[in-house]
Amino acid sequence: MTSSPESTAGPDRPAAPGFADIVAAADRLKGQAVVTPLLESPALDAEVGGRVFLKAETLQRTGSFKFRGAFNCISRIPAAQRGAGVVAYSSGNHAQGVAAAAEILGVPATIVMPADAPAIKVDNTRGYGAEVVFYDRHGESREEIAETLAAAKGARIVRPYDDPAIIAGQGTCGLEIAEQAAGRGVALDALLVCCGGGGLVAGSALALAERSPATRVFCVEPEGFDDTGRSLAAGRRVSNAPGGESLCDALLAPTPGELTFAINRRLLAGGLAVSDDEVARAVAYAFRTLKLVVEPGGAVALAAVLAGRYDARGKAVAVTLSGGNVDSELYCAVLGR
Amino acid sequence: MTSSPESTAGPDRPAAPGFADIVAAADRLKGQAVVTPLLESPALDAEVGGRVFLKAETLQRTGSFKFRGAFNCISRIPAAQRGAGVVAYSSGNHAQGVAAAAEILGVPATIVMPADAPAIKVDNTRGYGAEVVFYDRHGESREEIAETLAAAKGARIVRPYDDPAIIAGQGTCGLEIAEQAAGRGVALDALLVCCGGGGLVAGSALALAERSPATRVFCVEPEGFDDTGRSLAAGRRVSNAPGGESLCDALLAPTPGELTFAINRRLLAGGLAVSDDEVARAVAYAFRTLKLVVEPGGAVALAAVLAGRYDARGKAVAVTLSGGNVDSELYCAVLGR
Repeated sequence: MTSSPESTAGPDRPAAPGFADIVAAADRLKGQAVVTPLLESPALDAEVGGRVFLKAETLQRTGSFKFRGAFNCISRIPAAQRGAGVVAYSSGNHAQGVAAAAEILGVPATIVMPADAPAIKVDNTRGYGAEVVFYDRHGESREEIAETLAAAKGARIVRPYDDPAIIAGQGTCGLEIAEQAAGRGVALDALLVCCGGGGLVAGSALALAERSPATRVFCVEPEGFDDTGRSLAAGRRVSNAPGGESLCDALLAPTPGELTFAINRRLLAGGLAVSDDEVARAVAYAFRTLKLVVEPGGAVALAAVLAGRYDARGKAVAVTLSGGNVDSELYCAVLGR
Repeated sequence: MTSSPESTAGPDRPAAPGFADIVAAADRLKGQAVVTPLLESPALDAEVGGRVFLKAETLQRTGSFKFRGAFNCISRIPAAQRGAGVVAYSSGNHAQGVAAAAEILGVPATIVMPADAPAIKVDNTRGYGAEVVFYDRHGESREEIAETLAAAKGARIVRPYDDPAIIAGQGTCGLEIAEQAAGRGVALDALLVCCGGGGLVAGSALALAERSPATRVFCVEPEGFDDTGRSLAAGRRVSNAPGGESLCDALLAPTPGELTFAINRRLLAGGLAVSDDEVARAVAYAFRTLKLVVEPGGAVALAAVLAGRYDARGKAVAVTLSGGNVDSELYCAVLGR
């Protein structure tokens, strides 16, 4: 694996991924992940007075970008160790990405999910053949349960973002954006990426640093969960205040990952935050005008452009629509807001 | 204009369009219409046991394929006659397509709409700068009102389907499907196209007859409004029984067009019909699994594949998702069905 000069490798932590890892991940994902389209909408362009390119990861296998990292990570487990399986903890998109990737690769998967997870997410995860283990969100630690399960089985834990293979896999999304924009002769001024733990934006920033170095990369987070944005400003990892609430269930990581932040502090131009109202308007805009189903957490980058948090006038800007896994009750409540 | 051998040209009717007209339309639409993606979903492929390619005209300018025909038709009006404007009658997708195309071309547009049309459709049509004239659906003929308006202004009527320029414009959708499939090395066994008056399927069939002649083309209609399918079986144009109801407000034409049927009877492999329940399930599937907003009338071809009305097992089949203009109330009612 190629390490970047700022590698954080050491006895206790893995090496940071580099561009070569993203290229290798793209090769592994060929024929498995969907090369999602980079869409442009004349109506949206007119709305913001610039050119906006939508990377529709909503159309990715399992409905979010998470499949990319999960497949890359699991496919790197040596054949002899695959029988022991993988373990992940997630109530949402990462669970489905891991379950689907494991199914394709013939690896048994166990997903630790909260006992009160929405039935649809439990059903989807089981639908990909994974075993679901429930835990009590209020009294138990999902990380500890996952560690115990993994130790008992000799299984590999597939972390949601702080893993070089996950970051490299998510980076294939940024690589595609760079290639698709270049293929149309478009020089991107900026890329806005939805951010929870920071894996997608870190991987994408690595890809663009190599393939489109003049593009400024921003992370976009919900207000109250803008730990990466505030950490970038502070120059060190800070946490969100506990007890906050957000419409964006996919973006509630409490603090930036170690590996992801090491990359993001080096490569990002900054962080943007959007309110729940701005997110709801973006979800509704995607429904009404773009005809795309986007979940709240997947719509924050679009919200930043629509709300003018990033001024796209006269610019060419790409935004990720990172996922579309929302149940119809919440979706219709957001549309009716 | 190139006429087909079966041209229905005569003193009272225009010549049928040919393949050359579609190529010319594609040239006019370049940079104006969106080249919509031909999407493939691993989940859908697994569901039907074949390969399904989704032509997402939901992502077209104005949210449906109608912009193609409208722009092609209006752009062929000589410059000296454009000032007199265009007139169209529609409560839905054609209205928006004509209004948007006319705005781009600087042509005044008047759209005759029912007085009880949904406010959102009236607003969208006005949003493209068109003048809206209301009529009483129960006591007045929209065709007569449009003729009177057009005669008074010297304006051109832009018909919804029975016009060679409209058919050629819609045919660019089929041309793109043929090119996109060929570009991936895919030989399409079939193309399933949503059908109201038959303009989209007629134009698409003309394109595929030239560019992918082994592909069988089917029209798909709602049950009770399967006039084209029954006309194909009867060998002559038959009408729907009056008083029927359907979820598919975009596909309620009472009888096939003359020009469209002359093409469709020559080129189509047959007609398929789907029930409201099958359509609702397809709309919900598109939401839940594909993450695409599709209106009921735009989902009939997908419904035919999902419900097994066309057996896609082991086949490569393209289906049009012809539009996504549905208001949130109806959409959420369908999702909750």
